[in-house]
Amino acid sequence: MTAGAVGIGIVGYGLMGKAHAFGYTAAPVMRRLRHRPSLRIISGRDRERVAAAAESYGVAGWTEDWRELVNRDDVDIVDICTPPGTHAEIAAAAAAAGKAVICEKPLAVSYSQAASAVEAVTRAKVLNAVGFNYRRLPAVSLMKRMVDEGAVGQVRLVRSAWLSDEFVDPAIPFDWRFDRAMGGTTIADLGSHMIDMATWIAGPIVAVSGQSATFVRERSGRPVTVDDASAAMVEFASGARGVVEMARVAVRRPCDFTLEVNGDRGTLAFDYARLNELRFGDGADRVELYGMRRIRAEQQSHPYARDWWPVGQGVGYGSSFVNHLGDLLDRWPDGPWEPDFAQGAAVQAVCDAIELSAAERRWVAVSEITG
Amino acid sequence: MTAGAVGIGIVGYGLMGKAHAFGYTAAPVMRRLRHRPSLRIISGRDRERVAAAAESYGVAGWTEDWRELVNRDDVDIVDICTPPGTHAEIAAAAAAAGKAVICEKPLAVSYSQAASAVEAVTRAKVLNAVGFNYRRLPAVSLMKRMVDEGAVGQVRLVRSAWLSDEFVDPAIPFDWRFDRAMGGTTIADLGSHMIDMATWIAGPIVAVSGQSATFVRERSGRPVTVDDASAAMVEFASGARGVVEMARVAVRRPCDFTLEVNGDRGTLAFDYARLNELRFGDGADRVELYGMRRIRAEQQSHPYARDWWPVGQGVGYGSSFVNHLGDLLDRWPDGPWEPDFAQGAAVQAVCDAIELSAAERRWVAVSEITG
Amino acid sequence: MTAGAVGIGIVGYGLMGKAHAFGYTAAPVMRRLRHRPSLRIISGRDRERVAAAAESYGVAGWTEDWRELVNRDDVDIVDICTPPGTHAEIAAAAAAAGKAVICEKPLAVSYSQAASAVEAVTRAKVLNAVGFNYRRLPAVSLMKRMVDEGAVGQVRLVRSAWLSDEFVDPAIPFDWRFDRAMGGTTIADLGSHMIDMATWIAGPIVAVSGQSATFVRERSGRPVTVDDASAAMVEFASGARGVVEMARVAVRRPCDFTLEVNGDRGTLAFDYARLNELRFGDGADRVELYGMRRIRAEQQSHPYARDWWPVGQGVGYGSSFVNHLGDLLDRWPDGPWEPDFAQGAAVQAVCDAIELSAAERRWVAVSEITG
Amino acid sequence: MTAGAVGIGIVGYGLMGKAHAFGYTAAPVMRRLRHRPSLRIISGRDRERVAAAAESYGVAGWTEDWRELVNRDDVDIVDICTPPGTHAEIAAAAAAAGKAVICEKPLAVSYSQAASAVEAVTRAKVLNAVGFNYRRLPAVSLMKRMVDEGAVGQVRLVRSAWLSDEFVDPAIPFDWRFDRAMGGTTIADLGSHMIDMATWIAGPIVAVSGQSATFVRERSGRPVTVDDASAAMVEFASGARGVVEMARVAVRRPCDFTLEVNGDRGTLAFDYARLNELRFGDGADRVELYGMRRIRAEQQSHPYARDWWPVGQGVGYGSSFVNHLGDLLDRWPDGPWEPDFAQGAAVQAVCDAIELSAAERRWVAVSEITG
Repeated sequence: MTAGAVGIGIVGYGLMGKAHAFGYTAAPVMRRLRHRPSLRIISGRDRERVAAAAESYGVAGWTEDWRELVNRDDVDIVDICTPPGTHAEIAAAAAAAGKAVICEKPLAVSYSQAASAVEAVTRAKVLNAVGFNYRRLPAVSLMKRMVDEGAVGQVRLVRSAWLSDEFVDPAIPFDWRFDRAMGGTTIADLGSHMIDMATWIAGPIVAVSGQSATFVRERSGRPVTVDDASAAMVEFASGARGVVEMARVAVRRPCDFTLEVNGDRGTLAFDYARLNELRFGDGADRVELYGMRRIRAEQQSHPYARDWWPVGQGVGYGSSFVNHLGDLLDRWPDGPWEPDFAQGAAVQAVCDAIELSAAERRWVAVSEITG
Repeated sequence: MTAGAVGIGIVGYGLMGKAHAFGYTAAPVMRRLRHRPSLRIISGRDRERVAAAAESYGVAGWTEDWRELVNRDDVDIVDICTPPGTHAEIAAAAAAAGKAVICEKPLAVSYSQAASAVEAVTRAKVLNAVGFNYRRLPAVSLMKRMVDEGAVGQVRLVRSAWLSDEFVDPAIPFDWRFDRAMGGTTIADLGSHMIDMATWIAGPIVAVSGQSATFVRERSGRPVTVDDASAAMVEFASGARGVVEMARVAVRRPCDFTLEVNGDRGTLAFDYARLNELRFGDGADRVELYGMRRIRAEQQSHPYARDWWPVGQGVGYGSSFVNHLGDLLDRWPDGPWEPDFAQGAAVQAVCDAIELSAAERRWVAVSEITG
Repeated sequence: MTAGAVGIGIVGYGLMGKAHAFGYTAAPVMRRLRHRPSLRIISGRDRERVAAAAESYGVAGWTEDWRELVNRDDVDIVDICTPPGTHAEIAAAAAAAGKAVICEKPLAVSYSQAASAVEAVTRAKVLNAVGFNYRRLPAVSLMKRMVDEGAVGQVRLVRSAWLSDEFVDPAIPFDWRFDRAMGGTTIADLGSHMIDMATWIAGPIVAVSGQSATFVRERSGRPVTVDDASAAMVEFASGARGVVEMARVAVRRPCDFTLEVNGDRGTLAFDYARLNELRFGDGADRVELYGMRRIRAEQQSHPYARDWWPVGQGVGYGSSFVNHLGDLLDRWPDGPWEPDFAQGAAVQAVCDAIELSAAERRWVAVSEITG
Repeated sequence: MTAGAVGIGIVGYGLMGKAHAFGYTAAPVMRRLRHRPSLRIISGRDRERVAAAAESYGVAGWTEDWRELVNRDDVDIVDICTPPGTHAEIAAAAAAAGKAVICEKPLAVSYSQAASAVEAVTRAKVLNAVGFNYRRLPAVSLMKRMVDEGAVGQVRLVRSAWLSDEFVDPAIPFDWRFDRAMGGTTIADLGSHMIDMATWIAGPIVAVSGQSATFVRERSGRPVTVDDASAAMVEFASGARGVVEMARVAVRRPCDFTLEVNGDRGTLAFDYARLNELRFGDGADRVELYGMRRIRAEQQSHPYARDWWPVGQGVGYGSSFVNHLGDLLDRWPDGPWEPDFAQGAAVQAVCDAIELSAAERRWVAVSEITG
């Protein structure tokens, strides 16, 4: 570790690279951090683009070779923002180099890859975190806090859907997102966030029944090897039941994610298109007030609210990165960091179980995946 | 058939009896009917209550014995508004007496019962209809019309949920709704509407995977034999996929039903709490207008709109009965009536398939039920 | 009064005639009435249309001459559903004939006309009511009840807007709505409802500053003599302040009426497009729940709810007529009826004050109108 | 101008100081800037706080004396984030020192002060901008663009309200916000944003009629000299009419700002609580689609969208500062900057006119203020 500041190396300059750069840059302004991040280097395979990104994001240097980044002395944390199929290898190399690792989700494209990444960071005893940033949306953190405080009682039902139109146009050419080995699945791309949030709030999932469909089976003359849309029914260890659905072929649904929890005493519902709100139906309310509240999840008592704006002003997607990376920096260098690779692998196991279930048309116990 | 007016006999004076009486009474005011209904007789087992209901609903006579009603000469249509477990027997008797039959949903508590009801009306060659009134909400009818006109293209995904808190309080005493033989299931009580609408719009369902839970297992010392909450993934004959969920234990969710269809060219979404609206995402829209429209489904060109109020004023639940019963009266005595018992049985087959699937934890082909 | 039933005569067969017929017909089904209405006669100047309306609405007879209706022995209540410019004369004649009078809003096209109608019913000592039906929307009645119970504390601010596109198209030909002497003003057509609700809830208005505009000044070659859009700031006797706006030139705004009250301890807000809901911000709420509740204004404890459907099903515009006319019938023949002509005239005085204020560009005390 | 980077000095470390620091810090990450800002110095009267702010915001230095900041050689732009009553003096000093000036809104606490600030920057020929950041919310910029492109036709009606509960608690102690000379008015604090946006979109306002109230007249034993709530009707030079309302005593309304424009061909409506959306009612739409669209104002073709996240992810309040300050930096050093002090003064003239109108209870021409 370099003195004073924490050295960051970002692998990948695309959207996630930009989002993480935004997080590192804005976090110190918005909240009092114990350690300021210093953006030391960014890597990417396109020489011109990575150079431009370095300048734009305020990163001191750049390289075309992520291995160089991973081995830099002044890099304390390797932050992996590349496609899923590359995560496990980079994470293992970073861990082997003694670096803390932050890895975008999904942690890998299979549970076995994810487990190997867990093993690598465990062996190297390095801090590790997976990029389930939606947890750090203030309203989602508030939902978690309220469930923990008993606002809904015993959770019985969980439902979540993520609707996007990313794949709806058959003219979109083939790229790594359509390649099972590099992009993983829609189950994991969208679903890993939902499964992370659902299990964070309602505990482990033990069994699933899934269904998948690929409506556009070929792009640019190449077979599409990932699902366009999937769904699953799930059973939690607690006895709660859930339904999750993920689709990238929902026209004019850009990124419409919802999450609802029904307990024996209350209901909490989140709608990403209303990301500064959380709806709460309290079974103990006076019946004359029957209905749900629209909590403005920006009140000063709410998670992260003091770092941001006065209630009513609103934060956006970017806040999740500021909050997430800020939390990690605040726990540097001792940790714990959460969610960590173990949680990333646990989520991947559920994703793999859904995929297997859909393929074999039967209920699959998550333990079949984790062995 | 009596001259001039159509004689109606209503079996059951509860909420559904009241709703149908409202429909028969209001329909002639709201729309020009070819045949005016005449409410001749209502039946129910509680002497005082059925007498009071007759007076209140404007029904000429009453009886404690539904068999008397069924056999009255001046009754042309027998309208069955009793608990599901009684439907098949009453329908068969009415058909045998040569009456047209309107039966509340679900048509029966099992596919075999439903099939026997179909057989009875077929044998007797009487008009028959099942009370899937939500189809006749203007916005739902508009959704059907738009899908038929190609507004969403080829349907790929259907999702629907019905959330109620009817069963959430464990102190609610046992009644027929908790008795499998009389009340059917939550799958059928809430789900039959959803499955009717989904299949009306997207065609037959051929296979299902279901999950059910009963959280409150005993009431008034008696075992509860129905599900509190269920869900299913479904496959349509067309290749479309769907997810349906029905729950009566969602706190502060009174009757929150949603239905969304994603096709390859558009999205249509209905939310019952916004029952005069239909949201439409049109893939062909100029990208600068990206998003969904909120169609006010009361414009004069929309289904049923000319019968009701100027756009913006809004109709409620009651309008579905006016529209449904009005449509049936307009097709009296030649028909066809739709949806008919055959559709009621087809829906029940899907409900039975979900129930079986949940019990056996496997995918069930609907043909396993229908044989 | 005829024995057993209350004889009703409806003057006018247009939209309001239909809406009132719906109300009289549906009220006995939905609620236990002390007196059943009997639709005896309806009048209108178009022979064919009034005959057709009589048949459709279930009215026993019809006439082309409202004076005949007013003088019929079997008519107990004269219900006036004609254009505003005709109200005062018909009401005076009905009162003179000893009939109770229900008159659609606005009561007249000027305060002096309205005052003469008040004088007529007072002199004749007949029951009288004005058709401010929106009061009887369940959610609006609930707002009134909650304000009376102190839910918002002392009312400080009231705001209300009514946006319609009725006049937006310049090609709409001239008709009585564009004629000041027959149609009144937009201020009164839309505003009378708002002013009635606002004063019902927050007490009398004592002074106003108004502004009006007519954007389409000529139709069918005739000058338009009413406002397309107006607005006013108002002062209540209590010290509260208000803003009201009424417009018939708001594109794609069909009938979007909103009403909000801010007191020193709470906020209540109603949006007609969500007519089964009432939003409530309670200043005494735990700050962790900061925000507003969406009360489902159909819970069984709410006004009129027991007459209608289970919570979550929803009522529409028509319910306001059922509730209004049902309330009047329940208070037959002793009264009191409310709101009565005196309230109708008080509202008209505010409308006239706004009109005068807009013309003279100065604050106008309502007492300048009432003298 | 210093080479390479643009030197920034921020006067004031409070919420606005933080928001501007966020803007300067995040802008280079989110968009390709022609000039990177360098945060050179921040000033504030509380030694400890300003030092802490400098460290947190990443500002190189700090001072207790804003005059020192204004005269620093390495400061190119003086950014004024102090209470309104101090703006004019600081701006004049900065201009005199040859610095470009960015000043938070309202530009001053009176038109005469604002005019003196305009004179100072004009005389010094320095770039000048006023902090009407809400213009730079993507959806508000899109509204402006669509109006300019003719989406609503000729603007007829404008309505805007800003509801906050900032002053609702009478226990809030006296501070500068309650002092007319230092804080200005609620008319200007909330209203200046609304008036800026309204005039940006619909052109100059020429006359107003206002109303004001102060419900809590004393705090900490001192008289409150500002309004709690005000409203105004306005006339635009174009003939359009408007209604604006601003209140800081609306319970559980945190910062609920709405803006709607009705033209002869369309309606556009913005609701700050849905800040990534813009509703559009298009009079030319097929009548079967009657209603308004909910444009997701994040599509790549929309203002600022390419700088931010994929559609559906959402931005927050902070984005307005990134967009605003980024636009100013991109036009450094040649300009033009907009909105500039002249617009700030024009807005202040309308605010003063409303204040005068409320005091004298008469319509006031804005020209009475500007002379």
